[in-house]
Amino acid sequence: MKPEPLRLGVIGLGRIGQIHFSNLRGAIGNAQVVAAADPFSEARDLAANDGITTHATVEALLETPQLDGVVVCSPTDEHANHVAMAAQAGKHVFCEKPLDLSVERVQETLTTVQAAGVQLMLGFNRRFDPHFAKVQSVVRNGGIGDPHMIRITSRDPSPPPIDYIERSGGLFLDMTIHDFDMARYLAASPVTEIYARGSNLVDPAIGEAGDIDSAVCVLSFANGATAVIDNSRKASYGYDQRVEVFGALGMIAAGNERETQHQWLTATGEQRALPKHFFLERYEAAYRLEMQAFVDAIRNEEPVPVTGADGLQALLLGLAAQESMQTNRPVTL
Amino acid sequence: MKPEPLRLGVIGLGRIGQIHFSNLRGAIGNAQVVAAADPFSEARDLAANDGITTHATVEALLETPQLDGVVVCSPTDEHANHVAMAAQAGKHVFCEKPLDLSVERVQETLTTVQAAGVQLMLGFNRRFDPHFAKVQSVVRNGGIGDPHMIRITSRDPSPPPIDYIERSGGLFLDMTIHDFDMARYLAASPVTEIYARGSNLVDPAIGEAGDIDSAVCVLSFANGATAVIDNSRKASYGYDQRVEVFGALGMIAAGNERETQHQWLTATGEQRALPKHFFLERYEAAYRLEMQAFVDAIRNEEPVPVTGADGLQALLLGLAAQESMQTNRPVTL
Amino acid sequence: MKPEPLRLGVIGLGRIGQIHFSNLRGAIGNAQVVAAADPFSEARDLAANDGITTHATVEALLETPQLDGVVVCSPTDEHANHVAMAAQAGKHVFCEKPLDLSVERVQETLTTVQAAGVQLMLGFNRRFDPHFAKVQSVVRNGGIGDPHMIRITSRDPSPPPIDYIERSGGLFLDMTIHDFDMARYLAASPVTEIYARGSNLVDPAIGEAGDIDSAVCVLSFANGATAVIDNSRKASYGYDQRVEVFGALGMIAAGNERETQHQWLTATGEQRALPKHFFLERYEAAYRLEMQAFVDAIRNEEPVPVTGADGLQALLLGLAAQESMQTNRPVTL
Amino acid sequence: MKPEPLRLGVIGLGRIGQIHFSNLRGAIGNAQVVAAADPFSEARDLAANDGITTHATVEALLETPQLDGVVVCSPTDEHANHVAMAAQAGKHVFCEKPLDLSVERVQETLTTVQAAGVQLMLGFNRRFDPHFAKVQSVVRNGGIGDPHMIRITSRDPSPPPIDYIERSGGLFLDMTIHDFDMARYLAASPVTEIYARGSNLVDPAIGEAGDIDSAVCVLSFANGATAVIDNSRKASYGYDQRVEVFGALGMIAAGNERETQHQWLTATGEQRALPKHFFLERYEAAYRLEMQAFVDAIRNEEPVPVTGADGLQALLLGLAAQESMQTNRPVTL
Repeated sequence: MKPEPLRLGVIGLGRIGQIHFSNLRGAIGNAQVVAAADPFSEARDLAANDGITTHATVEALLETPQLDGVVVCSPTDEHANHVAMAAQAGKHVFCEKPLDLSVERVQETLTTVQAAGVQLMLGFNRRFDPHFAKVQSVVRNGGIGDPHMIRITSRDPSPPPIDYIERSGGLFLDMTIHDFDMARYLAASPVTEIYARGSNLVDPAIGEAGDIDSAVCVLSFANGATAVIDNSRKASYGYDQRVEVFGALGMIAAGNERETQHQWLTATGEQRALPKHFFLERYEAAYRLEMQAFVDAIRNEEPVPVTGADGLQALLLGLAAQESMQTNRPVTL
Repeated sequence: MKPEPLRLGVIGLGRIGQIHFSNLRGAIGNAQVVAAADPFSEARDLAANDGITTHATVEALLETPQLDGVVVCSPTDEHANHVAMAAQAGKHVFCEKPLDLSVERVQETLTTVQAAGVQLMLGFNRRFDPHFAKVQSVVRNGGIGDPHMIRITSRDPSPPPIDYIERSGGLFLDMTIHDFDMARYLAASPVTEIYARGSNLVDPAIGEAGDIDSAVCVLSFANGATAVIDNSRKASYGYDQRVEVFGALGMIAAGNERETQHQWLTATGEQRALPKHFFLERYEAAYRLEMQAFVDAIRNEEPVPVTGADGLQALLLGLAAQESMQTNRPVTL
Repeated sequence: MKPEPLRLGVIGLGRIGQIHFSNLRGAIGNAQVVAAADPFSEARDLAANDGITTHATVEALLETPQLDGVVVCSPTDEHANHVAMAAQAGKHVFCEKPLDLSVERVQETLTTVQAAGVQLMLGFNRRFDPHFAKVQSVVRNGGIGDPHMIRITSRDPSPPPIDYIERSGGLFLDMTIHDFDMARYLAASPVTEIYARGSNLVDPAIGEAGDIDSAVCVLSFANGATAVIDNSRKASYGYDQRVEVFGALGMIAAGNERETQHQWLTATGEQRALPKHFFLERYEAAYRLEMQAFVDAIRNEEPVPVTGADGLQALLLGLAAQESMQTNRPVTL
Repeated sequence: MKPEPLRLGVIGLGRIGQIHFSNLRGAIGNAQVVAAADPFSEARDLAANDGITTHATVEALLETPQLDGVVVCSPTDEHANHVAMAAQAGKHVFCEKPLDLSVERVQETLTTVQAAGVQLMLGFNRRFDPHFAKVQSVVRNGGIGDPHMIRITSRDPSPPPIDYIERSGGLFLDMTIHDFDMARYLAASPVTEIYARGSNLVDPAIGEAGDIDSAVCVLSFANGATAVIDNSRKASYGYDQRVEVFGALGMIAAGNERETQHQWLTATGEQRALPKHFFLERYEAAYRLEMQAFVDAIRNEEPVPVTGADGLQALLLGLAAQESMQTNRPVTL
């Protein structure tokens, strides 16, 4: 085990980069941010105000002395490039998902990482949500017996802008990809077949952009389990994130966190608070816990809990879902 | 055990009388209604339509051949009289509470019943609510260890008419008396002291009628437990009936039944249904189960589960609460 | 409107027949049981004890004077026959589902009923569950906007005997048929396509009998909505009956009723009661309310709320689900 | 408004001091920790590692240039002394409660603070719990009408060591004092009378140390509302923190946060997680939000939301509760 705190550089100080930056400075133990890189000077100023050395380029950041690893939060189309650069410089890498939308590009990058002998952890943050992690832990420990049926509901509070949708790779690669990973995490078995249906119910503009906004996927696993994922780009009541695993000996489910816990009863009914609005609020603890898991794995020289291979599998599921939807029949994996 | 169904007469076919009548004809096993009495011919017609022999007087009903017992649902000020008449005729008696508001009258009646060698069960229906009965059963079986604190919330959806309040004996004897019995049922220990506070917050007319509409009572039990009861004549959201018992090893609570179980989420919040409106809906199962318990006890020649002595104790607590409120200090029992 | 109570005969006094019999005698208003038929004398004795005229044959029962209608609770393979006999005798019919497992037989029977000018109500009792009825009412009244996604979970506490399974028509016709009707009830739109997957996970003997015990069906509706149904023959924690409808403006869900409502906390966790065990307990109110709806419709000369055509649609969905499972591709309706 | 971040010194780096220190460095905006003081060098090292100037004495810390305020987290018997020193140095003060257990000492200190023209905020953290704050906000905005009944349950997971209890001032001053403040916060009206009962049920050693471990207090407010507080030093299922306010138009309640949200059903029942274990977990957000409120108030030159006068009122209630318990009668305030 490395006795000193891990020395990390943050690449990209946008919304998610700032979250990891702030967590690494405060809540996360045994880690220090020693450098940050962003092409925009305003973004760099945020880090500089906290006394951190900043750089305009990744190349410059990677020259930081005694740098143990990097946290890649750059735009998606730079992920693979920055991961490869860091790996070739001998740094361990935490990278926001997806690594890339091209299977070939992902495979190349994983080869580069492997050749460099460093670890790559992919940011499937939902695995670290305390509620979902509890579900997975009970399932893994046999608490519901063999899993038969997994249900995942994942609905966003509102669709992203159309120009985002146009570059997103489509709902299955942009949104369901999280749920594919969650299904794999809960089933702990390879997917053998997928059937996907999609529709355009939320906003005609999404359909005109060539995408869907509502979907159902049915996944079959080698261990006999089936998973059903349902997605919507717009839940008027907020961010709806639920999982359920049903098995031979029981069932375990976990749902949303509410804004507050109150129960307010008047003559017209009982009111409760809505789910926490979106991913930054809902997965606040998950972002912290995933980064701590990365720091701990690197310091303890243990395998990181989510690998590039997990990212590749989720990507392959997304592509298979697209094929199933287009051909309207199940696709074997 | 009596092999045949119990043959019962119903005295009084008002609202609560009709409930017992209908339950005895349908849901309750091993019992038959063989006669009914009510001074009003309209009330008698209801029973007659179902082929039951009806009488205008209790005396006539008591002459029914092979009558095993009676169910007394007459107006409160006739309870003691009808119980005594039935007991002297050798019939077992189920009587709606209260037996009477006079301690002397209650004691006389209990003496008469005892002399007659029949059983008298008092209708503290809430003991038979499945939720509260489960709480009591877990407590009795040691599931929370020694009880330390009992909390009872009991709020009506709206106050009765003022002329009812004027004849009711006051909130402690009319409403809290149920909660005193529930506290005794849950604590299973004698009350040693009571402190009561009352106020007039719901309707000034109740205060002008010399009564209170809001109250808190603190009861101390010989086993060291304390109970807190809070009452209101008006909960705008409906009938609020909750109990909680906290002890050395845990806590068990049971609350309201809702009209329906739905959860309805829209952009403005989550809506749930209100508690079932009032006692006829909330305690539907309890009314059925208490009558079945009476029938079973008589047929099996076992003691009835709620006795006249229980009614007397609740009455004494109500009177002590009145004294405590008036003197503003705890009253020892 | 018929001013007098409806005069009904009950055909078949097995488990479900007794429930309808008892409800019609007690809880249901404006109806009388005037005759009952069952080939077994022990079954007839139950009714005779309550003073009801009994018959060994349906023919004899149908000669009861002034009979308004019948309630058919005979074994499934006699349903069509008894419905036809009653219709030809000019009696309105309430019939337990399914009418028959043969589409041709069902169509013939519906033709006979129509020709006779009587009404036929099919016993899809779950539509009358107060919780599900509330969900449907909110959806119909626009409370969640256009429906996008319907989720139905329907799991039995344990599988029926193998010899029952062998005669059942298979899981889709025996168990999912209820959920097909529920999906139609909630979507209020024709089904256009169905995709079904089944597996044998609960008991190998079920597979050896040629049936499945676990299934997922995805239904597409003409209005754009999608429904997902998941079934299991064995939920170790009891009878699991839940629905959820998600739409453009919100979501409404309703779940299980628990045995009791308590919350019991000790050092090892919080315990709550399991769902009510099986259909007789869970749908107690639904059985009462569906029969009341039949009685009210006939007396008021209004259409019954669930018709033979609803039964036919559910049957066609079950057969399409079988085809989809066997061909492993979606089936268009 | 002060344009720059507030420059604060932290006095005392024990358990609660470290929480405020870490929050001020990370989650709290517009504030900087510029110095820290602790007599123990190990405690100082924690801050020094983060690059903060540390001091062994409060005197030295108060000489920090451009210091805006201090956060007093020293041992309770030093609170008054450190508050006075800081005030006399012209610094605003956030102080952990209680200010002191002596009414005279508290009054002297408040006089000193007032004379110095600085602000003093007392750390009644529970007011900043998001759930309780929501309850208070709904009540204040008339969402339940005039408040009639306030119920506060406050139970610790286990009693502190006996030597702590001996120095604590007793349960009413050490534990209930939080609930007195919560009752005042929710009622928004002066207390006119208090009745308190205490008992020794958890551990005889607590009784031998002259203290109680279980208590009930009934508070009357000038606006007619009544509050009931129930306390225990030991809830075997964890930290139990609940409030409920019932009023003329409705009721609002808020309860515990659970460790995780899962529902786990097996053949033996449904299991849920226990409440978060103790105050550091339960009130994690509250600690952050109260410090942010202090920072914002000082920067905006607005009154702090919890004052020394609030601390004095809670102290007076604790002393009145002791008197009520000893005399076994209500005490007027």
